[in-house]
Parts: sequence; structure tokens; C-alpha cells
Amino acid sequence: MEHSLQLYELAGRDRVLRFSPFCWRTRFAVAHKGLSLRTIPILFSEKEKIAPYHSDRVPVLLDRGHVIPDSWRIAEYLEKTYPDRPSLFHGDVGRGSSCFIGHWTDTSLHPLILRSVISDIYDALDDRDREYFRKSREARFGCPLEQLFSEAGEAQAALSKILAPIRATLQQQEFLSGSEPAYPDFIVCAAFQWIRIVRKGELLAIGDPILAWREKIVTRYMSTANVHDA
Amino acid sequence: MEHSLQLYELAGRDRVLRFSPFCWRTRFAVAHKGLSLRTIPILFSEKEKIAPYHSDRVPVLLDRGHVIPDSWRIAEYLEKTYPDRPSLFHGDVGRGSSCFIGHWTDTSLHPLILRSVISDIYDALDDRDREYFRKSREARFGCPLEQLFSEAGEAQAALSKILAPIRATLQQQEFLSGSEPAYPDFIVCAAFQWIRIVRKGELLAIGDPILAWREKIVTRYMSTANVHDA
Repeated sequence: MEHSLQLYELAGRDRVLRFSPFCWRTRFAVAHKGLSLRTIPILFSEKEKIAPYHSDRVPVLLDRGHVIPDSWRIAEYLEKTYPDRPSLFHGDVGRGSSCFIGHWTDTSLHPLILRSVISDIYDALDDRDREYFRKSREARFGCPLEQLFSEAGEAQAALSKILAPIRATLQQQEFLSGSEPAYPDFIVCAAFQWIRIVRKGELLAIGDPILAWREKIVTRYMSTANVHDA
Repeated sequence: MEHSLQLYELAGRDRVLRFSPFCWRTRFAVAHKGLSLRTIPILFSEKEKIAPYHSDRVPVLLDRGHVIPDSWRIAEYLEKTYPDRPSLFHGDVGRGSSCFIGHWTDTSLHPLILRSVISDIYDALDDRDREYFRKSREARFGCPLEQLFSEAGEAQAALSKILAPIRATLQQQEFLSGSEPAYPDFIVCAAFQWIRIVRKGELLAIGDPILAWREKIVTRYMSTANVHDA
């Protein structure tokens, strides 16, 4: 039987809730490569579990003795280590552009998603993680969590606006990467998985092309049973 | 002697001022392909000159009887017609990502650049174009041009913030496309050429990595004498 890669990833109060967008990038990438994955859920407050791997953040990927932290380094590792499997980047420009799209997602998309669904995220967390989350996010945004909760509506309006280039691209081609999905899709779709998993209802309006695109990717990669808890 | 492509492009009061970011995408793409270009300057108020080509916008490219409007269609045309020359996209994912980066530039970057340097643009225009520019931009933004002039400082602050993913990418790799420039660089660099050409001073701070990147691209592609007025 083929070996499984192992992924340390963030989980919520209900261990089934795996909402980290960075971990989703890795999940999609591993599935795209047709590899199987065993996941090891950890809480924010269980960072000692990944300390032996010299990382204080998930994702951390283990592959036959190799330890790879950081979603971008993992993507590069997978592309280099499994060149005969479907490509994540399809060459230098796809890889370079993915780097830009990743930074756009990190700096523009993620902060607005976080602010849009922050009360849902807080609700999804294990009790032991709430104090950490409150402290770190209050420091990052410079205001109490309750103020962020009350401003979620404004964040959602701003979020909808910055999604314009995603919608325009999906009107022109089926995926962000062109006619087939690749790493640019995984980066952005991972951000929408974050919303999907912590929130009960959809944030985007019915008929938004982003929803249909997200479902196509999730169906394609997550319907196969390549992911198991370790 | 090799044939020249012809490009209708927007010009300012001084016909040497070619500031359209969409035309710059084409200029860079043609130079990257190593083709020579003759440019035909037109004003906003001279659209009758491109009407025979069934377009009301520049760029319009002419190549041995072919008429290609729209910078994106031009890039696709060049890639398809000159496959043996340096590639603009390096494959499907590079092309698909370029589509997204183009839409991000159109919807996020361009509006903030326009608002940041709007008085410089207005000053650069031919007298005959000013009324058109005033009317169309006042309709687009829903306020008098003078209000936009007075808000340029705020636009510049917002612009600097949304440049974060460009700066982060350039810290990680030499070009937005990776180790060598390709169409994603041309899309974004074209937007900075818009600023560079209408404005006397730099908008970005000395030492901003975007300036060094822009100069590398301009030096690489515009130092060759492949562009002439028709």
C-alpha cells in the first residue's frame, strides 16, 4: 500500500472542524498530487506537539522522514518531490504568479475574511484556545474582540468588493488557473473553505460564481477518500 | 527588414507622453517577443481614427492585415502567432494567473492610481481631451474632479497599502512571474508606467522595492530601440 503523508493541522472544539486556510492549501495540493494524507489535529494551545519539528505554526507536513513546515514550502516540496504527478504550478510563471496570489490572499483577502466571520471562528474554537485567540487578534487589530464582532457587517461589504477580480476571472475561464485547477485555485479556495467550515450559512449570495467554483474544487478533491485522521 | 507591428495608443498634450497602462501592457509584450513596433498616438477626442477598426478604445494592434483590439486579446494573439519567440505566459497556469492578475490590476490597483495622480493626468492631457476626461471620470466616481484632486492624499495612502502583495512577492523572487519577467510583470509594471509618465516626482518612497523592479523592466525592454512613431 502506498505510504501516507502526515499533516499537523488546526482543529476546533469539534475536532472535525479543520478551518485553517493554510492547512487547506496543503490538503488541496496533496489531493491534486493524488497522494494520501493522514491528518493530526492540534489546537492553538497544543503547539508543543509540533515543537519537535521546530515550527510554531501549522501546517507541518511529514513525508518519510522529511519535515516540511509552511504551506508555500510544502507546495514547493511536493512539486519537486513528485514531479511525475499532476503539477501544482505548470512551470516558472505559474509558480511565480502563485507566489503573488498567495501574498494577495494573505494581505488582502484573509484579514477581511477574518473580520467577516470572526464571531463564527471564536464560536468554533475549543475553550482552551479562546484566550489565545482573543489576545493575539486584539493585539493585531488594536481593539477588543467585541468591537470586531460588531464591525463584521462592514468587513463583509469590503470583502465582497475585493472579490471583484475573482468573479471577473471566473466569468472568463473556469478556474483561476485557467481551464484546469492548480495552485492559484487552491490558495484562494482554501480561504473560502475557512468561511465554509466555521460558518453555518453562506456568506456569499446565492448565484455568486465563487460558490459554484468552490464546490467544483471541493467535489473534485475532497470526494476522494484520500484524507484520514492519523 | 522585419515587419513592424502598429499600435494605436493614447497620447497627452505633448505627444511624447504615452501614459495608458493598457497600451504599456502591449508595449512590453511586443518588446518581450522581440518584435518591432510603430506607434500611432491618438487623443481621447480622436477616436474616429480607430473607428474603422471597430474599436472605441486603445490599444489597437495591427499586424499584417490583422486588427486586434484590447490588451488581453493582443497578448493572446502575440502568444499564439509568435510561439517560437519568448513566451508571455509559459503555459496554461501562467496564462490563467495573468488573467486574475489583470483583473486585480483593473479593479483594485488602477482606480487607486487614477485617484492618486488624477491632477497629474489632467495636466498631461491635451486641452481637447479635458472635457471628456472630466465628464467620464466625474460620472464614474460620482463627484466633481476637484473633490478627487483634494482626496489624492488619501488615495495615495490606500494605494501604498494594497501594494503589500507586490512588495512581499519581490522580497521572495526577482519578478512577479518568478526569476524572469513575463506577462504578470507587464500588467503590473504598465500601471506604474502610468504614474511615471504623468507625474514629475516619484509617488513611492525611495528604496521601495517596486521602484527597482520597475526600472529593471523598463531598462530591459525599453532600452532597445524597437519602438518608433509611425
